[in-house]
Amino acid sequence: MDATVLHAPGDIRLDQVPDPQIIRPTDAVVRVAAACVCGSDLWPYRGISKVSGPRRIGHECIGVVEETGSEVSTVRAGDFVITPFLWSDNTCAHCAVGMQAACANGGGFGGPDRDGDLVDGCQGEFVRVPLADGTLVATPEQPDEAMLPSLLALTDVFVTGWHAAVSARVQPGQTVVVVGDGAVGLSGVLSAAMQGAERIIAMSRHADRQEVATEFGATDLVAERGEEGVARVMELTGGIGADAVLECVGTKESMEQAFASARPGATVGFVGVPYGAEAPITQMFRRNVGLAGGMAPVRGYLDELLPRVWGGEVNPGRVFDKTLPLAEVAEGYRAMDERRAIKVMLRP
Amino acid sequence: MDATVLHAPGDIRLDQVPDPQIIRPTDAVVRVAAACVCGSDLWPYRGISKVSGPRRIGHECIGVVEETGSEVSTVRAGDFVITPFLWSDNTCAHCAVGMQAACANGGGFGGPDRDGDLVDGCQGEFVRVPLADGTLVATPEQPDEAMLPSLLALTDVFVTGWHAAVSARVQPGQTVVVVGDGAVGLSGVLSAAMQGAERIIAMSRHADRQEVATEFGATDLVAERGEEGVARVMELTGGIGADAVLECVGTKESMEQAFASARPGATVGFVGVPYGAEAPITQMFRRNVGLAGGMAPVRGYLDELLPRVWGGEVNPGRVFDKTLPLAEVAEGYRAMDERRAIKVMLRP
Repeated sequence: MDATVLHAPGDIRLDQVPDPQIIRPTDAVVRVAAACVCGSDLWPYRGISKVSGPRRIGHECIGVVEETGSEVSTVRAGDFVITPFLWSDNTCAHCAVGMQAACANGGGFGGPDRDGDLVDGCQGEFVRVPLADGTLVATPEQPDEAMLPSLLALTDVFVTGWHAAVSARVQPGQTVVVVGDGAVGLSGVLSAAMQGAERIIAMSRHADRQEVATEFGATDLVAERGEEGVARVMELTGGIGADAVLECVGTKESMEQAFASARPGATVGFVGVPYGAEAPITQMFRRNVGLAGGMAPVRGYLDELLPRVWGGEVNPGRVFDKTLPLAEVAEGYRAMDERRAIKVMLRP
Repeated sequence: MDATVLHAPGDIRLDQVPDPQIIRPTDAVVRVAAACVCGSDLWPYRGISKVSGPRRIGHECIGVVEETGSEVSTVRAGDFVITPFLWSDNTCAHCAVGMQAACANGGGFGGPDRDGDLVDGCQGEFVRVPLADGTLVATPEQPDEAMLPSLLALTDVFVTGWHAAVSARVQPGQTVVVVGDGAVGLSGVLSAAMQGAERIIAMSRHADRQEVATEFGATDLVAERGEEGVARVMELTGGIGADAVLECVGTKESMEQAFASARPGATVGFVGVPYGAEAPITQMFRRNVGLAGGMAPVRGYLDELLPRVWGGEVNPGRVFDKTLPLAEVAEGYRAMDERRAIKVMLRP
């Protein structure tokens, strides 16, 4: 089959690789209907995280179950499924409390599983999904084409924004600041709105992203960054700061922005993989500002969020502003790297 | 009057100083019935935090209102009062949400107020308390002698332990680890029990403190530290870790212990002034372990906690295991520094 392989920083290709097979009775193989490029895929693409040799990549896809192992019972061939970006048994002690991202038996896509067998990356034609019963969630019916972007957003980006808002403990009526106007930040805006925030200040300086932020429920846009950005947030909040802050980037600057925007007693919900970000413990102590978040336990949120997306209440797929055939995956990475696209959908 | 002055590390004395006066119409002067030495007083005493010259010290006291300024209306001369370790207006935007520790107009004891006038330290005969209406809380009647330690504990130590448990979001039925067996850690054990924790693992290796921890509700005692301590917690929790962790020390080692004891999705509630402690942001991200806490907004919790103490439901004053006349304050500091006492009460 065709699958995306990152050969070296900047060198992403669609290669011929072996078709995935059912290896264990708990596996399923999914034929990918749509996949996408994540902001975190850009870290190795840019060489910021190490690339030690050719590697499969991509961790977000939706598609149709092609085949299942003999012990799989909750999905079957032909089902249309959401594939959370981490696979999990959904039964261990961590999964039982909604922490599927820390599943005792789980793992990620694009590398070896716990027995050393490759789990395919999601930017390809097919994917072997371990622990299919605990991982895959089938849609009620086959979806329309128009629904695909929002279903794809459920595999990671939308739910990661949701996790930021949950981690920041957004409450109805609150004022929320969202740092980062990438697809996750925009999803955070949508999530804060769904969780009842009254005022949502989106830190964004790109017109296309400001437009999506506003559609998603942002009430205020702050284009300034650094000290000027903080000053603007303070001006907008009467000098008090935000009740909750969503940090959706992971850099030193974005984390500083987040903490400086938080009022005493607030929580910064963080979901951007930390690259240089630090938790300012003395400031946190003095101002009683908490930090919570991490990798989103997508599977745990799907029982609530899939019906809300399927029912048309929200359209998180709005973050996809470019669709390319899988064969043009390299252009997809370039478009995201150069910020010509917010998020790119790939169609095998 | 007599008041405690820290002249240099290790050099603590009872000096003659001017009697406090009402300076502003919102002030009160309190005649101290009992004061105490805080673990954080030991930082400058030990020279770990800088001592640039003789300074008044102490931030915990209870006593009788001696005199009030013309605008003070909620307490009057003769009232027995709890003096939270920070003074606050209790009306600003931060106080309004229970964050009195960040009061826009508040401050601490033992140094200058916002106009540069000295606010007495609490280890003395009298204390000028600014913003008396927003700070002081009167008891329903004059207390018995036997009640004094528990009322004194309400000025800081007990409520700081309470804040750790609130910050760690302890829920009924949970398993909680408390790192630190000083007076704050022990108060954290009591607070976790009051908040419904089913299992409370106290990290403690001193027999006298283990005894108090057990009285306060600890179900398990772990004397080991470092990797062995973590291994023991993991053994006790079936390899899962604690649902909530209270970090009541503030050192690098104690914070590492706290994070290593937390299960994914847990929150570390921290109340020890950070001296060397770091927030391990990558570990926090990978494991979804949050960090929250800081200086306890004592005033905000008193409406709930004073009646519970006054009614005899709990006896947080149990942490005081040594009482000395104020004149022997130097011995009080030595006893705490050398761990011969958990917490020392001083009687002027």
